[in-house]
Amino acid sequence: MSATDATGFSVADIAAAAGRIAGQAAVTPLLSSDVLDARIGGRVLLKPEALQRTGSFKFRGAFNRLSTIPESERKGGVVACSSGNHAQGVAAAAAILGMPAVIVMPQDAPAMKIARTRALGAEVVLYDRLTEDREAIARTIAGERTATFVHPYDDFGVMAGQGTVGLEIAGECRRLGIVPDLAMAPASGGGLVAGISTALTDAFPDVAVYAVEPEGFDDHVRSLAGGERLKNERLGGSLCDALMSNMPGEKTFPVNRRTLAGAVAVSDAEALAAVAFAFRELKLVLEPGGAVALAALLSGRIDGRGKTSVVVLSGGNVDEAVLARALAENPA
Amino acid sequence: MSATDATGFSVADIAAAAGRIAGQAAVTPLLSSDVLDARIGGRVLLKPEALQRTGSFKFRGAFNRLSTIPESERKGGVVACSSGNHAQGVAAAAAILGMPAVIVMPQDAPAMKIARTRALGAEVVLYDRLTEDREAIARTIAGERTATFVHPYDDFGVMAGQGTVGLEIAGECRRLGIVPDLAMAPASGGGLVAGISTALTDAFPDVAVYAVEPEGFDDHVRSLAGGERLKNERLGGSLCDALMSNMPGEKTFPVNRRTLAGAVAVSDAEALAAVAFAFRELKLVLEPGGAVALAALLSGRIDGRGKTSVVVLSGGNVDEAVLARALAENPA
Repeated sequence: MSATDATGFSVADIAAAAGRIAGQAAVTPLLSSDVLDARIGGRVLLKPEALQRTGSFKFRGAFNRLSTIPESERKGGVVACSSGNHAQGVAAAAAILGMPAVIVMPQDAPAMKIARTRALGAEVVLYDRLTEDREAIARTIAGERTATFVHPYDDFGVMAGQGTVGLEIAGECRRLGIVPDLAMAPASGGGLVAGISTALTDAFPDVAVYAVEPEGFDDHVRSLAGGERLKNERLGGSLCDALMSNMPGEKTFPVNRRTLAGAVAVSDAEALAAVAFAFRELKLVLEPGGAVALAALLSGRIDGRGKTSVVVLSGGNVDEAVLARALAENPA
Repeated sequence: MSATDATGFSVADIAAAAGRIAGQAAVTPLLSSDVLDARIGGRVLLKPEALQRTGSFKFRGAFNRLSTIPESERKGGVVACSSGNHAQGVAAAAAILGMPAVIVMPQDAPAMKIARTRALGAEVVLYDRLTEDREAIARTIAGERTATFVHPYDDFGVMAGQGTVGLEIAGECRRLGIVPDLAMAPASGGGLVAGISTALTDAFPDVAVYAVEPEGFDDHVRSLAGGERLKNERLGGSLCDALMSNMPGEKTFPVNRRTLAGAVAVSDAEALAAVAFAFRELKLVLEPGGAVALAALLSGRIDGRGKTSVVVLSGGNVDEAVLARALAENPA
């Protein structure tokens, strides 16, 4: 089951991460909604990581990764690049561990994500998403300051932290005597879904786990179909600002090839409809990128009829204008 | 501990209700937020009943009460009066139990609450809050149709159902090894807080439980101080549409006199600030009336510094214009 030999990553890494983040990250609940069940025609279990510290799952991976930085290297701090959720996760983890943090963020990141990252004590460096390479900027800063670069997904420590979402889902399903048929989680570079699928397929060998992406950023859809890592042509322009990575990760893709049943893409309109549904019926605040797995189910792109589905709601750091647009475009 | 002799109501009623609603009502989680803890300077545990079926705690009391209607009397159905949350709770419970439901609602109830009540299959009868007596209208309809009148709070079956919120809080606190110092819940007629305070003071004899009301509808504040049930002068005009009962209940008040440490009132502005805080920091959608207990803590009207406080977030059925106003009046 723990095939570390093939990919270097296994459920044991996730279990170790769970120990490190205990008491710092929230154990988020597994929710259900009779309205959603009726709408889908199946049983749906929701894992709302919008309720996680900093408003997304990213704190888990960040805190786990930063916890493993040796004491002697902590003074130099950490550097990360992110449109805003990894940014807040790293900033919060660094603050707890007493490390300085520099975050490289795109100029077009949601204003509230930039403000929240600064409020957590991080130094924010802005770049142009269309003309500059954020990772190169971050690695240069890391070199200058002898800081540790914390990749948003292509890092076993980060992947293991995100995988604790799956470990919690598996534990709660076992407690409730539920064996899920399907599970779905948003994917950008694929760290979250790699961690979750590793934990869930270990606990439930027959569960079919899907990565869900925004249209135009469907690199997992195409890469899984093609058997190799393929790039997106677009560099920006999705409402799902959290899910605009350029291609699957070098470390995440071999894991996801082994553990995923597939990947699907949803439109911005479908993501906004899911944001509106979550607001009205689930009473949860989600950002579009955090709602794509719910969108896959609501839109029928993944068929949940007669099944038990687990849906990861990965983040809730939505710009208020975007929430207003979601409600206006999807009248009650 | 179970002083049924004095008030006719005890924790045994609540335990029986928990058995009846199991599998129908959601067991809502107990959440925490590092941002809220830091803001208050204490530990805060949140019980988000906005995540309950129909978007408020009211389903608990309604389903428990309706479950006790004898089979022979079910055909006549049920009648209730409510500004919208009890309405939805009764409508949903009646639908599950196969009973017709008529709900008497004020003309100025939030449009979404009227729509959601109708969507649950209930017949809605509108009245004028300022000139008509809703309970008289409802009791007349009940007589005409041989339907069972389901009071929104002044009914031991309803109070017991709402008390399951407290039973769940107590169970989760015990599991986590936490002894709460303070607890606070919204009060209109006082059914929810009567149930919660009965369950919590049974589990934790030293906990101080507070009712929280909107300004102008502070009948519990004045009645507890005066030692008798006192009416509100106002009949409408609060943003907390869920909390505009005229006075404490005949059955709820003796319970609350025995179990509550006190009551406080918050302004509409403080309730809106709590709605905005919940949206931005907790990622929860709350209505103003559902947020008043949080408002009491955030405003400092109840001092949570150095304490462990339990805050009941009782409902999330907010009109979208009200949410927009809350965000606009409380810029990030």
